[in-house]
Amino acid sequence: MNFSSKHLEKAVEEIAHLPGIGRKTALRLALHLLRQEEIQVMALTESINLLKEAVKYCKNCGNLSDHDICEICANPRRDKTIVCVVEDIRDVIAIENTGQYQGLYQVLGGVISPMEGIGPSDLNMTALLQKAEKAEIDEVIFGLGTTMEGETTTFYLYKKLSLYPLKLTAIARGIAVGDQLEYADEVTLARSIANRVPYESSIKSDS
Amino acid sequence: MNFSSKHLEKAVEEIAHLPGIGRKTALRLALHLLRQEEIQVMALTESINLLKEAVKYCKNCGNLSDHDICEICANPRRDKTIVCVVEDIRDVIAIENTGQYQGLYQVLGGVISPMEGIGPSDLNMTALLQKAEKAEIDEVIFGLGTTMEGETTTFYLYKKLSLYPLKLTAIARGIAVGDQLEYADEVTLARSIANRVPYESSIKSDS
Repeated sequence: MNFSSKHLEKAVEEIAHLPGIGRKTALRLALHLLRQEEIQVMALTESINLLKEAVKYCKNCGNLSDHDICEICANPRRDKTIVCVVEDIRDVIAIENTGQYQGLYQVLGGVISPMEGIGPSDLNMTALLQKAEKAEIDEVIFGLGTTMEGETTTFYLYKKLSLYPLKLTAIARGIAVGDQLEYADEVTLARSIANRVPYESSIKSDS
Repeated sequence: MNFSSKHLEKAVEEIAHLPGIGRKTALRLALHLLRQEEIQVMALTESINLLKEAVKYCKNCGNLSDHDICEICANPRRDKTIVCVVEDIRDVIAIENTGQYQGLYQVLGGVISPMEGIGPSDLNMTALLQKAEKAEIDEVIFGLGTTMEGETTTFYLYKKLSLYPLKLTAIARGIAVGDQLEYADEVTLARSIANRVPYESSIKSDS
């Protein structure tokens, strides 16, 4: 593309570096920003700069936080004997939105992937293993994805943690609430039959 | 969504103000930016700030420019007697990319739309009408869209400009190069038959 302004060209180039945004979308966004008031554009760029400067990773669980220890770990009402292992901060947000979980998290920041050169030492799991060693926790819930990498990581942690007297659980896989059986894939359906639960507990969790 | 960091929440909110970007995409972009080096994030925000501070609208044609007069208007090799009327800066970029047009532009910055409260006085057309009045131009090419608003704007300008001894033309509408006739819509096909061109000129413009 042939821009009449070098500044526009530079901005389009930078915006197009964002994932999932091509040059045409970047141009559309840049022209949108040009039409906005200066104060709105400043609010956007300042919030992005602050994001990078002020947001930290919680020293305990790896969650994003404005402080050294995140709100969840610092909350005295959370049950510190249960830890849910997740891959990503987005998983924490998703689980927190349910309002059903009162324990802590361990955010690995990824999963073991030999293809991408990510080994166990690249993941944020030290705090969890230390807690298990010091017998500070009673239960670990595996909340990783069911991809091959996710399953590998879960199995790695399972082997490490089974040395300690811990309850090791995994989040239930099954037919989504509201979904019809006929459209479910076979693996999910098979697993949801194998891991069937008492009827009373299946209605209790809805309330 | 329930964020563990106020700075993250603010950044997601600001990014989600961009057109076509919802909160989930905004969160994905914010987490991507968090993983980038500080220098890359600064390059993005600085380029956006500079865009707003330094980019001007050309006083002659309304195109974007780093100077008071844009590169196209300032170029002594461009034919200043022909003006192509377009809606948007993106249209200028599209036409410039063809390398086939050597005249100037008039970027209206919109089209007449009573529904959105945009009247002729909101559009950047004064410079064009002045040029016509002073007999500085020989030809005006209408390059606006074929929406009702685009056609209305073209007709408005046509009425204004037909007072002067000008050649008034419109860009050709027809079957796109490479398209097959059977898939063309009827209006386009009818117009491309009505506005058929001598065979010699149809092959000349490809070269």
